[in-house]
Amino acid sequence: MPQDKEKLAGSESKAIAKRAEDYSQWYIDIIDVAGLAEHGPVKGTMVIKPYGYAIWENIQKILDAKFKELGVQNAYFPLFIPESFLKKEKEHVEGFSPELAVVTHGGGKKLEEPLVVRPTSETIMYSTFAKWIHSYRDLPLLINQWANVVRWEMRPRLFLRTTEFLWQEGHTAHKTADEAKEYALMILNDVYKWFAQEYLAIPVLVGQKSQNERFAGALSTFTIEALMQDGKSLQMGTAHDLSDHFAKSFEVMYLDEKGEQQFVFQTSWGVSTRLIGGIVMSHSDDNGLVLPPKIAPIELVIVPIFRNADDAQLQEAKKIAENLKNTFRIKLDERDNLRVGEKFFEWEKKGVPLRLEIGPKDLAAGQCVLVRRDTGEKIVCPLSDVEKTVKDLLEKIQTNLFESALARQKQNTVSVDNWDAFVESLEKGGYISAFWCERAECELEIKEKTKATTRCLPFDAEEETGKHVCVHCGKAAPQGKRWIFARAY
Amino acid sequence: MPQDKEKLAGSESKAIAKRAEDYSQWYIDIIDVAGLAEHGPVKGTMVIKPYGYAIWENIQKILDAKFKELGVQNAYFPLFIPESFLKKEKEHVEGFSPELAVVTHGGGKKLEEPLVVRPTSETIMYSTFAKWIHSYRDLPLLINQWANVVRWEMRPRLFLRTTEFLWQEGHTAHKTADEAKEYALMILNDVYKWFAQEYLAIPVLVGQKSQNERFAGALSTFTIEALMQDGKSLQMGTAHDLSDHFAKSFEVMYLDEKGEQQFVFQTSWGVSTRLIGGIVMSHSDDNGLVLPPKIAPIELVIVPIFRNADDAQLQEAKKIAENLKNTFRIKLDERDNLRVGEKFFEWEKKGVPLRLEIGPKDLAAGQCVLVRRDTGEKIVCPLSDVEKTVKDLLEKIQTNLFESALARQKQNTVSVDNWDAFVESLEKGGYISAFWCERAECELEIKEKTKATTRCLPFDAEEETGKHVCVHCGKAAPQGKRWIFARAY
Repeated sequence: MPQDKEKLAGSESKAIAKRAEDYSQWYIDIIDVAGLAEHGPVKGTMVIKPYGYAIWENIQKILDAKFKELGVQNAYFPLFIPESFLKKEKEHVEGFSPELAVVTHGGGKKLEEPLVVRPTSETIMYSTFAKWIHSYRDLPLLINQWANVVRWEMRPRLFLRTTEFLWQEGHTAHKTADEAKEYALMILNDVYKWFAQEYLAIPVLVGQKSQNERFAGALSTFTIEALMQDGKSLQMGTAHDLSDHFAKSFEVMYLDEKGEQQFVFQTSWGVSTRLIGGIVMSHSDDNGLVLPPKIAPIELVIVPIFRNADDAQLQEAKKIAENLKNTFRIKLDERDNLRVGEKFFEWEKKGVPLRLEIGPKDLAAGQCVLVRRDTGEKIVCPLSDVEKTVKDLLEKIQTNLFESALARQKQNTVSVDNWDAFVESLEKGGYISAFWCERAECELEIKEKTKATTRCLPFDAEEETGKHVCVHCGKAAPQGKRWIFARAY
Repeated sequence: MPQDKEKLAGSESKAIAKRAEDYSQWYIDIIDVAGLAEHGPVKGTMVIKPYGYAIWENIQKILDAKFKELGVQNAYFPLFIPESFLKKEKEHVEGFSPELAVVTHGGGKKLEEPLVVRPTSETIMYSTFAKWIHSYRDLPLLINQWANVVRWEMRPRLFLRTTEFLWQEGHTAHKTADEAKEYALMILNDVYKWFAQEYLAIPVLVGQKSQNERFAGALSTFTIEALMQDGKSLQMGTAHDLSDHFAKSFEVMYLDEKGEQQFVFQTSWGVSTRLIGGIVMSHSDDNGLVLPPKIAPIELVIVPIFRNADDAQLQEAKKIAENLKNTFRIKLDERDNLRVGEKFFEWEKKGVPLRLEIGPKDLAAGQCVLVRRDTGEKIVCPLSDVEKTVKDLLEKIQTNLFESALARQKQNTVSVDNWDAFVESLEKGGYISAFWCERAECELEIKEKTKATTRCLPFDAEEETGKHVCVHCGKAAPQGKRWIFARAY
């Protein structure tokens, strides 16, 4: 019975661990049963399967259009960076050294200088920017690259931490320090936050990283952070104000309006395939993946309930598919080797936001049934009304996913003012809002004791009146604003 | 005077070598003055600049849509391949060994097994396909990947031969040998030939490679070949019939309808950033790049001739730009720091197919002037008629570029039947159509003597009656069909 073997061989029959019981296994199971990715043969690497890659393509499409709208140009820089380039920026090489993959042999020979496989492209790009930028008229220079990068990963997790991952890295050069900082903030707010909230339906905190957590070589790092269902935080995207640190190392200069040579001020910013891990962990449930409609490879799956290829309900399903295919990303499931329940089960696990069922009785009544993936709600819909109803429901699902995630984030954010409460609260998971002395050593001590770190100082944190002291060490909190602490991926 | 320095610093003032005098330098100059690419810091690597990358994005967009139409799914496989994987297919590892880049250190430690940076992905993909394919119902499996690959290059040339390049690689698995072969031929004819001719305006020969020239590990390699302006051939894309060679090495099997295990039959196929080198060499002239409209980042550049920001002709140019921007890829050049002649010169070098000029006299006469990049022809056009005229001219340019290239290919293809004529004809450049014994040793001797190789046995080669002998060694020509010989990139 080949069909039986086929079923056993696939992942369909695997049980999904319960979130509440084993969150780590649940995450692995969701990725597996939804067919998003699997581990590659080399430890830490990942094969992104077609369904997972289709999500990445949607992410790329939306972000790339936004970048182009902002005047950012795509380019492509080499994968291999001379080891000496990395060493030009002291903090940068210190930060990345432990994570590097090194090519020592090429074309059958030992290389004179080892080559680093890019962990990020500041050094190779800015050595080139130095040749491209001459005058103030060449600024701002706004460049983006879609590429793979490699950072050696000891504890790999699909999408969240992989030795190789896909990302976009934006790199810009500006005339002034203020302009660079503003640009990094604009990317964070108008692109990354907007994208996470509007498309991925993931509410994010936006703010500034502590000294410990900032990018190696940056003056400041700005971040979007999201709370996952297990109460841990995920850094979803960052934008760095690089000041003139790299410009000085790579002599990226311009002639200003007065004819004087000046260093440029730079930014870099990126989001990666890690976002897919964030989508999985934000919305999915014990039955499988749940995808926000705006990013789902398939928004609507049409499942006719039929016995023979000429059954009227199959014909009607084809007609519906034909009518909707230019408006929504749809899939008509006309396979004849699976029972309808198996099909429902499969699409549920793959997180398709909306399912349209049509059987003989539905057809006779001139209707179909729409089933929401997020709530399980069934909506009987007249056949004359399908397009409008699908549109409304997809919008409702998108909104509901965002609002549910936002409610969870709010529920799981607490203000604490003493260390006992900090520790106790942390065990429950979620965000802790607390005063902090802003000393690097203090943060490291907190991390050692609790595995929690500062996630950011939110931009909207208000300065509170009175004298405030660090929740951990009791020293003064210099800004009088609360930082956000959490355990993080 | 910053503006003067700026001009000197740019590449605009560089002279372009004449094609007839120094073709190699001409090629380098075109890429430079058009701003397509430059060498990276590591020998053999390439920085693809925004204008060059925009051409690649157009290539990707068209091909990717075609692949999806054919049911091919995109996925992503790891950059790093265990060295042992490559060794599983004997011919494959022999073919690629001299070109490999090898990672020996990762995360600060020496690796137990060296990792190869993918030169192509057959081995890593098929080790995974073995897990994905179970039953005949899983076939055909149609996968494509857009990625960077690395092949160590001793004599690098931008776009044509670079240590790292960008490409797409399609990989399919089928039930039968015939189906796999047909699929490879379909990709060659319906995708690659179609794309080269319809979009790049480059006429191609389609045919089968000799044993020497086929892909390492393939049963047969099919190719599209194009004649460049210097009389050398460029292999523009290939599709390989891999038979069950890799399936046997990686145990890629399926359960057939009768419940029996069978090896799959596979194909792989790719085109790369090399295509951009082909575009440059096919169409460009001594004044700069010439781009076919269908692939040009900018189809039409609008250059108003104005003094002040409120001049009526600048306002009219803005109106034209607004009207056309949703129909064509356009650029309005409203820079006020360059003379109009400098602008013309710049867009000419960048190969923009069509230029629209509008000065005060034109505006008074209710007209503008359109200038073709391919012929230099100037067309006076009533302002009421711009959209239609632009559309017509772009089509004419596309057709003219293809037809010019086709005429050149025909003029430079000769049939020869003896060795002296072969050698003499080769010195003139172009394609030689000749009978050949099909022995690998004979081809190597021809190559050693003349630097020419077989490019392909064209699919449309006719079997000629009578007894035919090899143009080089005099042994029998087994198929009675003429092979195409040329020097090649």
